Amino acid sequence: MSVILSHNNYGKSRVRMVKVARHGDRHDLQDLTVNIAFEGDFEAAHTFGDNSKVLPTDTMKNTVYALAKQTPEIEEVEDFALRLAGHFLSHNPQTSRVIVQIAESQWARIPVGGKPHQHSFTKAGDEKRTTRVNATREAAAVESGIEGLLVLKTTGSAFFNYIRDEYTTLKETTDRIFATAVKANWLHSRPDAATGAVWQGVRQMILETFAQHDSLSVQQTLYAIGETVLENFDDITEISLSLPNRHCLLVDLSPFGMENNNEIFVPTDEPYGLIEARLKKG
Amino acid sequence: MSVILSHNNYGKSRVRMVKVARHGDRHDLQDLTVNIAFEGDFEAAHTFGDNSKVLPTDTMKNTVYALAKQTPEIEEVEDFALRLAGHFLSHNPQTSRVIVQIAESQWARIPVGGKPHQHSFTKAGDEKRTTRVNATREAAAVESGIEGLLVLKTTGSAFFNYIRDEYTTLKETTDRIFATAVKANWLHSRPDAATGAVWQGVRQMILETFAQHDSLSVQQTLYAIGETVLENFDDITEISLSLPNRHCLLVDLSPFGMENNNEIFVPTDEPYGLIEARLKKG
Amino acid sequence: MSVILSHNNYGKSRVRMVKVARHGDRHDLQDLTVNIAFEGDFEAAHTFGDNSKVLPTDTMKNTVYALAKQTPEIEEVEDFALRLAGHFLSHNPQTSRVIVQIAESQWARIPVGGKPHQHSFTKAGDEKRTTRVNATREAAAVESGIEGLLVLKTTGSAFFNYIRDEYTTLKETTDRIFATAVKANWLHSRPDAATGAVWQGVRQMILETFAQHDSLSVQQTLYAIGETVLENFDDITEISLSLPNRHCLLVDLSPFGMENNNEIFVPTDEPYGLIEARLKKG
Amino acid sequence: MSVILSHNNYGKSRVRMVKVARHGDRHDLQDLTVNIAFEGDFEAAHTFGDNSKVLPTDTMKNTVYALAKQTPEIEEVEDFALRLAGHFLSHNPQTSRVIVQIAESQWARIPVGGKPHQHSFTKAGDEKRTTRVNATREAAAVESGIEGLLVLKTTGSAFFNYIRDEYTTLKETTDRIFATAVKANWLHSRPDAATGAVWQGVRQMILETFAQHDSLSVQQTLYAIGETVLENFDDITEISLSLPNRHCLLVDLSPFGMENNNEIFVPTDEPYGLIEARLKKG
Repeated sequence: MSVILSHNNYGKSRVRMVKVARHGDRHDLQDLTVNIAFEGDFEAAHTFGDNSKVLPTDTMKNTVYALAKQTPEIEEVEDFALRLAGHFLSHNPQTSRVIVQIAESQWARIPVGGKPHQHSFTKAGDEKRTTRVNATREAAAVESGIEGLLVLKTTGSAFFNYIRDEYTTLKETTDRIFATAVKANWLHSRPDAATGAVWQGVRQMILETFAQHDSLSVQQTLYAIGETVLENFDDITEISLSLPNRHCLLVDLSPFGMENNNEIFVPTDEPYGLIEARLKKG
Repeated sequence: MSVILSHNNYGKSRVRMVKVARHGDRHDLQDLTVNIAFEGDFEAAHTFGDNSKVLPTDTMKNTVYALAKQTPEIEEVEDFALRLAGHFLSHNPQTSRVIVQIAESQWARIPVGGKPHQHSFTKAGDEKRTTRVNATREAAAVESGIEGLLVLKTTGSAFFNYIRDEYTTLKETTDRIFATAVKANWLHSRPDAATGAVWQGVRQMILETFAQHDSLSVQQTLYAIGETVLENFDDITEISLSLPNRHCLLVDLSPFGMENNNEIFVPTDEPYGLIEARLKKG
Repeated sequence: MSVILSHNNYGKSRVRMVKVARHGDRHDLQDLTVNIAFEGDFEAAHTFGDNSKVLPTDTMKNTVYALAKQTPEIEEVEDFALRLAGHFLSHNPQTSRVIVQIAESQWARIPVGGKPHQHSFTKAGDEKRTTRVNATREAAAVESGIEGLLVLKTTGSAFFNYIRDEYTTLKETTDRIFATAVKANWLHSRPDAATGAVWQGVRQMILETFAQHDSLSVQQTLYAIGETVLENFDDITEISLSLPNRHCLLVDLSPFGMENNNEIFVPTDEPYGLIEARLKKG
Repeated sequence: MSVILSHNNYGKSRVRMVKVARHGDRHDLQDLTVNIAFEGDFEAAHTFGDNSKVLPTDTMKNTVYALAKQTPEIEEVEDFALRLAGHFLSHNPQTSRVIVQIAESQWARIPVGGKPHQHSFTKAGDEKRTTRVNATREAAAVESGIEGLLVLKTTGSAFFNYIRDEYTTLKETTDRIFATAVKANWLHSRPDAATGAVWQGVRQMILETFAQHDSLSVQQTLYAIGETVLENFDDITEISLSLPNRHCLLVDLSPFGMENNNEIFVPTDEPYGLIEARLKKG
């Protein structure tokens, strides 16, 4: 019997960095978590423990800090990921592919006397701006994304006319709470289309579509969100959406002689429905 | 040898509820997690398994939903906690003390076309508005609080002139990042002083003091925050603050021939300094 | 512009179940978390909100409980996953693929007076036995796996002779701590080869290889583990391994006039190296 | 108005350490997380930012590593906590009280060919051995404890004859699952009674009492555990127990024409009952 190494990758995960750009009194802030993965000619490291082609993951971490320092300004996460991937590919001929993923936490300036403070910030939720750059020497696919965008609507969501079988107990409803944590990733036709303004635009479109859509199912709302993004952004060619259905269950108040007119719910973390799809331009 | 039951309490924790108040087109939303604890005459339950004085924790949970339903409007968490504590004390003569704690998640209306949406919301961070009501038949102490208020300032924080002993390696600094997750609880002189407006006022005062204080230590900033709150709110008599020091370490870039002028930091979760104090009016 | 739904799946995640099989005085226990995903003809649900081909995820959850009840004995997780996938495929012609993943927590009988108790258990770690069944009407791929198997060796691990570039600061070492949380998945050539005995055998082989391997890198140890499993189990055709390198950093005690002879370490959660590979029989 | 600093403490939390004691081929391993808190004369740090009496928390962290190094052998966590508290009190006259808490993770030797390996280990669950030393210059209170001891019994637990009010829906039961995560802390009459053998003895007594007790309520089982520990260990004078009731809900299979004879349950994380008590010798 012979053994084949059919796939391998290695790298550094959860490299955290806070970067400060100082412009006199005003400071800008960026809070990133970076994951790096290499693919390439690493067979000998596996089979013989020959590390002569292995760049230590500790060096990958150092490179994040050194390359960040080389650009004094705060830069788009997609640009930083591209710089990192480019550096690693050009300095490491043994690599065939480098994947860089970055998640950016959102900080907002603290308002003091109604004005944004120059160097003090408060964290604006658990929502993350994300990017994934998948680069070879020939090409780089640049995805942008969002994670942990928690949204809830108290009406405008229905679910009925579904299959009923011997194990179905769910009641049809024309009015339920719809709560989810949006995760979305979209692919750009060209890397320089991945700007902060586009990200803000997509985020706002996700929020508005969620808010306004008369939902017949999570699937339909997911599709409406994806379709709207593709229709409105010329340089976005594909979008993936993952929507966990964070069920809010109506509490049965009838044992207490009360009627629950969609007022009192129990939000639940598990089990949860999970609806996922990828849409692309035809 | 005899065994004495020197203290006991029991109750229900993490009772979650989403409440919707429907005003025609506009819906209000409240997202709570409630903890309830009873103290009282429960010796026989422990020593004989005699449950005749035990209100099941499942009933405590049901009571949360039933009492919420009785008040159609969204109410202040302190008021709801007081109602719950009062209900349990008046219906359960075997209890001598009821403690109700509530944490309220913050949801903001989704802006659509620049206007807040009528029934769609997005979660505004992990920050929680909290309350703790500690009630007996004689009195109720009402505390309000905040948890998970993440703040960071990139300058205006120093730490020097401290004790140096044989195990000290920390370098003195006149300019460091100060990052923390504020946890605060304050006691009201009278229950009806615990309004949402007061909570918003205290929150803003914490943020502004953090932003503007020229900090010589976490202790000094903590004290400045507490002092300002006590000075500005007549009905707040005590305040406790707990500030974990979420260290952002300056990355040593000198091996790469670079100077790090307070630009590149590694934020760390552990270990962390923890600074806590309680201030009261003299 | 037209929009194409290039991929979609939906299902129920984190369906939790504790199953008890009662054999007179002796009870057997199984603690599972089940994830189910459907692929198939769900285009109309996305584009028109037509749910007529949608089996609610709530029904999927109910089906887990109903099918578990139909088999009074505790069964292998792979067999239960196959039964679930088979049920869903045969009852839902609109599905083309059903993926069932199960994670089984490990409980051990409490020893009382040296003998395993008949109906009382204690949880044996966070380690999970897992399975993933990927089934169509034509075929079912059955994978077994393990997650959260935390291991640490205090010697027998080296890392040297790696690439050094301008950003390398890591020191070569011939003796370091090697700590990881093994995640492994292996594919069976035939479903009925996936027994509990095989799982225990693979687990023990992972542990023994980790313990005894003179490691020149995480890659080499990963490969040694995979190779040994493939060589010793005829019916296992492929294995994937994911090994996070949970770095234990040597504390610099030299400022205190002490030498640290690999005695005092700081274990760290982040950043971490991540080494992954898939091996198959040639 | 004047402001009084009515209480303050500060220190370092989550100082992690892995210690290795090398005895030729055989290595011993200890994995600790240490929390340190000082109380004392720190008013000026709060009011004036005068740090001249402040030992930095970074130095506290360093002291953990330096003092660990001074004892080559693995020592009981209680002894290490006492040494740390003693060091801080004797070197810092400004402190009036030092509280040291340690949590020790449990690692077991990997069996290879049936024999425990000399230097390779696997983590034995999330259970922690804990200690809390509360020391002044006059006295030190030494508590030992356990956290995260997950236990479940499939029978031998009942709950009936409780109060029924207008909001009660719970059904009485003479046979239910009882699952909990035991947290216990016990106080020693003298510090040197806190040995590993005693800890193992208390742990085993908790497990056996849980397994064998015919439970009429969580309260009764809690009391039985505490009473047994106090009766069997002369040097333990008090014990606190905290038992979350991790409810396993019976699944209603009647809609599917099935009877659920205590076979199929849904384990839930929230809400949970929480039963706490402190027992002492009379």
